Amino acid sequence: MEITAELVKELRDRTGIGMMECKKALKETNGDLEQAIQVLRKKGYARAKDKMHRETREGVIGSYIHLNGKIGVLVEVNCESDFVARNDEFAELVKNVAMHIAASDPQYISKDDIPEDVLAGEKEIIREQLKDSSKPAEIIEKIVEGKLGKFYQEVCLLNQPYIREDKTTVEQYIASFIAKFKENIQISRFARYELGKS
Amino acid sequence: MEITAELVKELRDRTGIGMMECKKALKETNGDLEQAIQVLRKKGYARAKDKMHRETREGVIGSYIHLNGKIGVLVEVNCESDFVARNDEFAELVKNVAMHIAASDPQYISKDDIPEDVLAGEKEIIREQLKDSSKPAEIIEKIVEGKLGKFYQEVCLLNQPYIREDKTTVEQYIASFIAKFKENIQISRFARYELGKS
Repeated sequence: MEITAELVKELRDRTGIGMMECKKALKETNGDLEQAIQVLRKKGYARAKDKMHRETREGVIGSYIHLNGKIGVLVEVNCESDFVARNDEFAELVKNVAMHIAASDPQYISKDDIPEDVLAGEKEIIREQLKDSSKPAEIIEKIVEGKLGKFYQEVCLLNQPYIREDKTTVEQYIASFIAKFKENIQISRFARYELGKS
Repeated sequence: MEITAELVKELRDRTGIGMMECKKALKETNGDLEQAIQVLRKKGYARAKDKMHRETREGVIGSYIHLNGKIGVLVEVNCESDFVARNDEFAELVKNVAMHIAASDPQYISKDDIPEDVLAGEKEIIREQLKDSSKPAEIIEKIVEGKLGKFYQEVCLLNQPYIREDKTTVEQYIASFIAKFKENIQISRFARYELGKS
């Protein structure tokens, strides 16, 4: 398949990544735009990592109201400069994160936010399920790790599959904006209200 | 001043209270619409009191974003029926309460929500301020009561003067909707985020 200039441009626009890398990713995926985005997301994520410790004092507080007010979300997304905070694409990111929270009901931002007793309780449940297994201890530990990973995917916002691109985690989705804006971006807090459930 | 049918109608529309009572309130205030609203609010509040214990399982979660996302509010306002929850005026009430929270930064919903240690600390501060006073103990107690009342007005949503009508408390403002809809209405929770302050 031919890699047209239009296709490269679209990929650049969507990822903010340089032309040569976009072209390379499209060749790698035979011109499949969505797959090329995945390839670049992973690369972008690797590159974004070194920005993830940088201080974020600016940002936007966004909200999303679902089903005529049956579910509501408030979220604070931070970045480094007011310039990025006022960018339309940043506003879209905030909206999408709020919408994601409404749909996926995370309990924590990252796994570091899970209280120790909750984590211990979860490990206890997993070990209980495996207690009659005759597998060797190191295999059991691997299974526990795997099941914990699934638990993180369920309850931690950053580990959840992003609702609009289920092969991308929310963390990877945010990392793609870090790569694009060349600024650290962090979710510092969120509240999710569901009518009558507190 | 003549009490015109138009004036009575406007008062009815704004308060939801019967024609005769609106006419009476307008006569009492010489046709001053805003004062008549105050008069009816007080009566409405008295009448709303007996509905204030009724269970509220329906409602709306609303949000308000201020200053391009520098302040954000999420609030759950409950009522008794989905019919009222879907009413446009109820939606307006929710929006106004969210806007009020953004502007007035309450810490609690009602004074019952103030933690005991916070209240004890506040009383301590007030008594400290009065310790060199030569006034009799019962007068001191009255002053403490008065200062506590001011503290409630500062930190409790329901006791705050409603931003759009500063002679009305938020509780009275809500009571006017209880009188109008003939259903209990309650604020069950809110979150207010200010950029960078957590």
